[in-house]
Amino acid sequence: MSMKTKVARDTAADLDAADPLRAFRREFVCPEPDTIYLDGNSLGRLPTATAGFLGQVVRDGWGAGLVRSWETWINWSRQLGDRLAAHTLGAQPGEVVISDSTSVNLYKLATAALDARPGRRTIVADLGDFPTNRYIMQGLAEQRRLRLVTLRSDPDHGLDLDVLRRALSGDVALVVLSLVSYRSGALLDMAAVNSAAERAGALVLWDLSHAAGVIPVRLGAAQGDLAVGSTYKYLNGGPGSPAFLYVRKDLQRQLRQPIWGWFGQRDQFGMGEVYDPVGDIDRFLVGTPPLLSLAAIQPALDVMERVPISRLREKSVQLGALAVRLAEEWLAPHGFRLASPRDPARRGSHIALAHPEASRISRGLRSENKVICDFRPPDRLRIGFAPLYTRFVDVWDGLDRLRALVESRGYEQLPVDMSRVT
Amino acid sequence: MSMKTKVARDTAADLDAADPLRAFRREFVCPEPDTIYLDGNSLGRLPTATAGFLGQVVRDGWGAGLVRSWETWINWSRQLGDRLAAHTLGAQPGEVVISDSTSVNLYKLATAALDARPGRRTIVADLGDFPTNRYIMQGLAEQRRLRLVTLRSDPDHGLDLDVLRRALSGDVALVVLSLVSYRSGALLDMAAVNSAAERAGALVLWDLSHAAGVIPVRLGAAQGDLAVGSTYKYLNGGPGSPAFLYVRKDLQRQLRQPIWGWFGQRDQFGMGEVYDPVGDIDRFLVGTPPLLSLAAIQPALDVMERVPISRLREKSVQLGALAVRLAEEWLAPHGFRLASPRDPARRGSHIALAHPEASRISRGLRSENKVICDFRPPDRLRIGFAPLYTRFVDVWDGLDRLRALVESRGYEQLPVDMSRVT
Repeated sequence: MSMKTKVARDTAADLDAADPLRAFRREFVCPEPDTIYLDGNSLGRLPTATAGFLGQVVRDGWGAGLVRSWETWINWSRQLGDRLAAHTLGAQPGEVVISDSTSVNLYKLATAALDARPGRRTIVADLGDFPTNRYIMQGLAEQRRLRLVTLRSDPDHGLDLDVLRRALSGDVALVVLSLVSYRSGALLDMAAVNSAAERAGALVLWDLSHAAGVIPVRLGAAQGDLAVGSTYKYLNGGPGSPAFLYVRKDLQRQLRQPIWGWFGQRDQFGMGEVYDPVGDIDRFLVGTPPLLSLAAIQPALDVMERVPISRLREKSVQLGALAVRLAEEWLAPHGFRLASPRDPARRGSHIALAHPEASRISRGLRSENKVICDFRPPDRLRIGFAPLYTRFVDVWDGLDRLRALVESRGYEQLPVDMSRVT
Repeated sequence: MSMKTKVARDTAADLDAADPLRAFRREFVCPEPDTIYLDGNSLGRLPTATAGFLGQVVRDGWGAGLVRSWETWINWSRQLGDRLAAHTLGAQPGEVVISDSTSVNLYKLATAALDARPGRRTIVADLGDFPTNRYIMQGLAEQRRLRLVTLRSDPDHGLDLDVLRRALSGDVALVVLSLVSYRSGALLDMAAVNSAAERAGALVLWDLSHAAGVIPVRLGAAQGDLAVGSTYKYLNGGPGSPAFLYVRKDLQRQLRQPIWGWFGQRDQFGMGEVYDPVGDIDRFLVGTPPLLSLAAIQPALDVMERVPISRLREKSVQLGALAVRLAEEWLAPHGFRLASPRDPARRGSHIALAHPEASRISRGLRSENKVICDFRPPDRLRIGFAPLYTRFVDVWDGLDRLRALVESRGYEQLPVDMSRVT
């Protein structure tokens, strides 16, 4: 540890001591005390209760209950959706279900939205958005011969609302945006986007993957049309846990998603000849949900529901502020640049640090320094703060190890390799 | 138990004693010795090894490995697909992946097939097929303004190949069929269908949900184009475990599925601007797979791979023959009719028994007699035989309890209720 630090480790330790959420770390499995995990924005930690609950679903539900357990299980997509709506998304009961992957949900809702604006030929997306979001829109645009306008958002500061407003012609059917940028963490103003799009007659489909569980999302108050999002990041649902989708109540009957599966059918077990979708949010379901992966969302929500999102946001902002301060003090001299909005009000719960050697540095941190964060091409370290379990000393220690690594140039013997998994 | 039986229970017990697969029942959790489970065609039993394996994936993979575990996990869709290809589907390595639900996979492959036959405007399906299969084709036909021809298959005996052949005009782009009918169990001749369709220039998309794991499927030898199927029935992957999809190798580069997700991208973590799908089977992947549900397929395959499919088929045929014999002897006098092909060579691993009171009888069996089988509207009991764990005495006892129930008319006080869950 360098002696040049101005922010002492004690400062971080004091913040932990004063943290009203500090007890929640015990609700998560943290088996390697020396490992610093700053990647809960990619895969949330395992809640302590999850293994037991899953064991019970497997033994009692599947093993003993067998097919009879579907009488209970069949309601989980909806029940967990309602809980997420109430606690996390600011939506009404009956507006959220959990099913399929984020990508598949995005496809379903985007297609439904385009069908609901048949005269319009333009989709607006963000060139800086998560790849799958853009790819899916590219596919839809090609298939339907639509125009895909990809806005040039600032890689560090996100999308300028004026850029969006200028693109909102009367030909725009659909705007697809992430509330929090997967790369920079830049946070958009949902209400402002929604109202601009509404004035233009376009629907907005939000990807809330990097927002849900750390940002007070207010889909209802902000007049959100459509949204999808991951449950395995800050929601701690486990690897690949199925994604949520939201459709505002008054839109549900107007919209028809393209994959006409039997889970959307009005009388599912009547097995009638003709598809006749139920009138509510369940029409956006398709096939049998991956029940074990769905089940794991339940104990994760049990923990999260004990804390209002506003408290999680408060701590997230504090964690981010400490990280930004340390990065400027310790890392800027070594060629790092904060590639995220500096204003916490314009940021989600992660920051990006740009450095030409970010790929090798992130691998060095992981293998040599037991600090786990992401690399995002071309040159970003992505550092996430999960307020339920990330401590202020984790931020201090993690950035201290990062500083030590760049000071020693200990990453330079590592081969260059861009590939990395989220 | 009635004394009028000709087939004695000892006959069934003798068949069990001589069964070379009898030891495999111990590989499955059977916690209620008095419950007779004849519904493995709906949800396969829990393999004994699964809870431990899942616990390990949760604790070590997720809990300790965290995001690092994706370096291993990311290969599972493909690795499990290759194992299924080799053991169960008669396909080559690189022709099968596991991802998404059967319904979503059906949509992806059907759309890809239609795009590959742009001049043709007709989809051929089977009116007797599983509802989701027909609904998805209805949706595609409506969206693309195609003609959907639904063939009238016989509800008991399945599709007459001549009916199909007559429908195969030069306008047919795609034929969608189940190899084994979800209702009657009628088994189609895959090679004959494929060759008729090929002569007409149409692609065939098979649903193998009720075939995989009990029928020697020979996708390669039968020149199969496309297939999907469930892994939670005879493959014992657990409730809603993700489905497999197969695309013959020489078709892979010609076909492009509609949901352009990042798991199909050539350089997935390069996160480039433009969708550029990989050249192999992975281009049919979309988003992050539900890892816990995917993981549960592994211990199930470990068990199944110890037995060649031909042996499973042999026992399945014997179980079915016993059931048909008992049904004719015991149940026909009470108004039951075999609603399945009588010839075992034309049948999968379940039979249907038609009775006007089938709905109440199936519920009575379940609640009063601890016999679990399915009801399928309008009037069918569906009785499945999972050769890895169904015993001949299970068939005997199950049908004996059914006989006792109808003799006593013990179901008549139950309310009529069509709803039932698979």
